[in-house]
Amino acid sequence: MASFRDVGERGMIGIIRGAVRPGGDARGMSDDAAVLPGGIVASTDCVTFERHMPEGMGWERFGWTAAAVNISDIASMGARPIAVLAAMALPEDMDSEDIALIASGMDQCAEFAGAHIVGGDTKPGPGVIAGTAIGDMEGRRPMTRDGMRPGDLIAVTGTLGGPAAGFLALGNGIDAPDCVFSLYVPIPRVEEGIALSSTGMVTSCMDLSDGLSTCLNTLCTESGCGAVVEWDLLPVADGVEDVCVSTGTDVRKAVMDWGGEYELLFSFAKADIEGLRASGVEFSVIGIATEEEGAMLRRDGKCERICNGSY
Amino acid sequence: MASFRDVGERGMIGIIRGAVRPGGDARGMSDDAAVLPGGIVASTDCVTFERHMPEGMGWERFGWTAAAVNISDIASMGARPIAVLAAMALPEDMDSEDIALIASGMDQCAEFAGAHIVGGDTKPGPGVIAGTAIGDMEGRRPMTRDGMRPGDLIAVTGTLGGPAAGFLALGNGIDAPDCVFSLYVPIPRVEEGIALSSTGMVTSCMDLSDGLSTCLNTLCTESGCGAVVEWDLLPVADGVEDVCVSTGTDVRKAVMDWGGEYELLFSFAKADIEGLRASGVEFSVIGIATEEEGAMLRRDGKCERICNGSY
Repeated sequence: MASFRDVGERGMIGIIRGAVRPGGDARGMSDDAAVLPGGIVASTDCVTFERHMPEGMGWERFGWTAAAVNISDIASMGARPIAVLAAMALPEDMDSEDIALIASGMDQCAEFAGAHIVGGDTKPGPGVIAGTAIGDMEGRRPMTRDGMRPGDLIAVTGTLGGPAAGFLALGNGIDAPDCVFSLYVPIPRVEEGIALSSTGMVTSCMDLSDGLSTCLNTLCTESGCGAVVEWDLLPVADGVEDVCVSTGTDVRKAVMDWGGEYELLFSFAKADIEGLRASGVEFSVIGIATEEEGAMLRRDGKCERICNGSY
Repeated sequence: MASFRDVGERGMIGIIRGAVRPGGDARGMSDDAAVLPGGIVASTDCVTFERHMPEGMGWERFGWTAAAVNISDIASMGARPIAVLAAMALPEDMDSEDIALIASGMDQCAEFAGAHIVGGDTKPGPGVIAGTAIGDMEGRRPMTRDGMRPGDLIAVTGTLGGPAAGFLALGNGIDAPDCVFSLYVPIPRVEEGIALSSTGMVTSCMDLSDGLSTCLNTLCTESGCGAVVEWDLLPVADGVEDVCVSTGTDVRKAVMDWGGEYELLFSFAKADIEGLRASGVEFSVIGIATEEEGAMLRRDGKCERICNGSY
């Protein structure tokens, strides 16, 4: 029998999907978030003390992160966040003031996103925060993962590799404050998501929380097409190359294979590029969707398959 | 500095509430669930392998329970459940088929409630399932905890003490299948909640997941009044007294102080009792709300203060 480790997080989605009835009116078991009747969008995701709290992060930024990962999932659909809930399973010997710092951090991220913490639950447990973000599409069409078409341009907001480099910098005593900050304080792209969905021109979208390699493959699989991304077009964050050189890390791994990025990855028809630029969202075109299935990276004139998070 | 253990789950709610901004349009940091604009109701709650999986329960019923605790929270507001989400932090060596059983159990409970599993997340972690239930008030007024008025009758659906007796029976090798079943398969009172809120006559309501003692005190505190409950009116489940006698347990503790009950506790004006009976919901009147603050129990002619879960 296969363990969770054998199957992987992605694999479990398929197994769980097979174990439950289809979602009725709700779309989006495959998307970052589910779309409910009335245009309400909801997503849940958990973070654990053990895996999501790098050295020096502190409780407040851990709380911010717990909210951000969920808000990002509804932002990538184009929803306006309304409410955040938090179910916390926390060690009984944990200082109540530290728990309040987590709540305050979540609230600060909710405030950034225009939402409120509206409820939650604390229970004795091993150190897990499960957040839920709820948003409103306000009549806009949700941006899902399944609409990319061959010939579409593929783009990302912001820069890539910062959180990975931040993690490496922390572990190796390297001074890279901007990278570390991007690791500590992930910014959900709320206004960008709303502006992009307002154009009605985006054919697919998701956040980069699982890393560019995995996410590109997901868009390709869900949309039934392929993609070629140009290495030279990737907007690598300042400081990433230096940290990678200092730590003997492959820059490509830092930029493409790590998770913890909260930029938006999206696609649109080439003809719509001016319309998208007019939305005011800054983005970098990184590649193009293809007929041939599979996600590819072109670098130094060579084209190779991007595997899910591993070369 | 006070630990989570010192402060307690109820105490943490106050501390967390102090750490975040008030909920904007959303009501219900004090209630089982939050009410969002448009009459959408949402609640989140977590269960852990360690604390919420009694001997012999099995993964499927654990999944049912994970969904039930959340569905119950929106049912007690009178919402019709629409969607359930699940964030799971699970051991990496856990069998993927067991994870599928949890998902299937959650889905069965969602189906019972007329809802669908619409999304979720699995991460490596210590064995925590955080569910979120989302429902629709469909134009009904949410039943909150703060509207009980002196003179109101206080009532409960169903019977009390079954889950506590089930737990005691399991631990002591006593044959009490009905009690054990009520522990293993908590039934969220969905149709009852909808029918009660449809009457517009309920002045306060919550589920009994924290036990009658705690919940009565909560209704009194939130409503700013008191309550007297009559011992002889409590609908004790069949088998509870026998299990308590066999295990040397105070029946009052089993009936009032244990959590894990999912019946509804609610209040209404005396004049409305026929209207409530006409709703088709079966309930037992157990006491009356009073001017004098505090929750009291009258038993054998004596009246004593009900402390939060401890005598």
